[in-house]
Amino acid sequence: MQHISHKDIENYDRFYRGNLINSVTGFKSANLLATRSIDDIDNVAIFSSVTHLGSNPAMFSFVQRPLGHGVGHTYQNLKATGKITLNHVNMNLVDRSHQSSAKYDEQVSEFNELGIELLRRNDFIAPFVNEATIQVAAEYVNEYPIKENNCILVICKITDIFIQPNILHQDGWLDISKAGSVAINGLDGYAVAKTRKRLSYAQVDKELEELSIDNDA
Amino acid sequence: MQHISHKDIENYDRFYRGNLINSVTGFKSANLLATRSIDDIDNVAIFSSVTHLGSNPAMFSFVQRPLGHGVGHTYQNLKATGKITLNHVNMNLVDRSHQSSAKYDEQVSEFNELGIELLRRNDFIAPFVNEATIQVAAEYVNEYPIKENNCILVICKITDIFIQPNILHQDGWLDISKAGSVAINGLDGYAVAKTRKRLSYAQVDKELEELSIDNDA
Repeated sequence: MQHISHKDIENYDRFYRGNLINSVTGFKSANLLATRSIDDIDNVAIFSSVTHLGSNPAMFSFVQRPLGHGVGHTYQNLKATGKITLNHVNMNLVDRSHQSSAKYDEQVSEFNELGIELLRRNDFIAPFVNEATIQVAAEYVNEYPIKENNCILVICKITDIFIQPNILHQDGWLDISKAGSVAINGLDGYAVAKTRKRLSYAQVDKELEELSIDNDA
Repeated sequence: MQHISHKDIENYDRFYRGNLINSVTGFKSANLLATRSIDDIDNVAIFSSVTHLGSNPAMFSFVQRPLGHGVGHTYQNLKATGKITLNHVNMNLVDRSHQSSAKYDEQVSEFNELGIELLRRNDFIAPFVNEATIQVAAEYVNEYPIKENNCILVICKITDIFIQPNILHQDGWLDISKAGSVAINGLDGYAVAKTRKRLSYAQVDKELEELSIDNDA
């Protein structure tokens, strides 16, 4: 195997290092996080750092890069309004989602600019992405500043979930490959994922069983 | 679309809720984290919460579930020795990797118990998973207790990377689908992912270009 050492990593230029280190921890989730500013501008931006944090209470985290220079509208709006939506990226949305990472002025709505169709639900202030087959409403809970690199771990609580009924299984599991959700490879690679097997809860001295991934809902 | 409300989520039994909430944030990385205890027991366990945290310094995080009842050997060993390895799960490793989440006694090595081939590299105390096509050596940096659910966000610094040369591209990007790395869907679903496109760095008023995913290395 090829060995890349600590010194190699330090000596690479920032683009090479960014590509390498963003790829090496495995596939990442692909979500559009949408918020609305106190000036009524609807913001949407792609994030690859959304991670399941716990089911009870139902929470996810995302990593906010260091603030400044046009970065952090999602975070600012979430702090100001308390509300955010998470919307799964599918292949039809990939190009527009990727472009949402450009540093648009905070007075510009990426929904309008990129032709991402907005969906407003009742009195929830944050907008949803209409084309997303999985949409989640959430609210701000807390944040942890990461002193090692000035990022912020932001924690949100899931309040509502909107899905296509055919992806929900009898035991609550969602077939997110059937929903068309993509995975991210590195900074800029988009992958189609096909769920191949489910396995039973692992216990010592018990054989694993394969669970059906045909939808019996 | 089907609407699942806050009250629905709270009222589900824990298994249904666990399946749903673990699926709804998107695909997750699939890694075997390996450590060695101060009693010389080699430990390996699957984690779906490993997330890229930054490239300079090169860091990843993982979420340690609340400690106790046979949980936390990875975390304890990492704290005691300072070292850990991250190894990508591929389809051949899925069954044994999933079984590593059973609560084995800390005197039991999952490598032996599950037939996962161990690789020792020089004087690095933590073992590697020989069948993994991407292997990473890392060290403990810091941790942030998450007060909302008693989890711990653990931060590690990447010190060495071992890869098959054919997955490394000229700009540092790794084709982790070519490496056979899988993605996790929920608590127990395993997906094969195929990277379909790479896109250029997004800038305001500039058209995206598609980057080649054929390896020119």
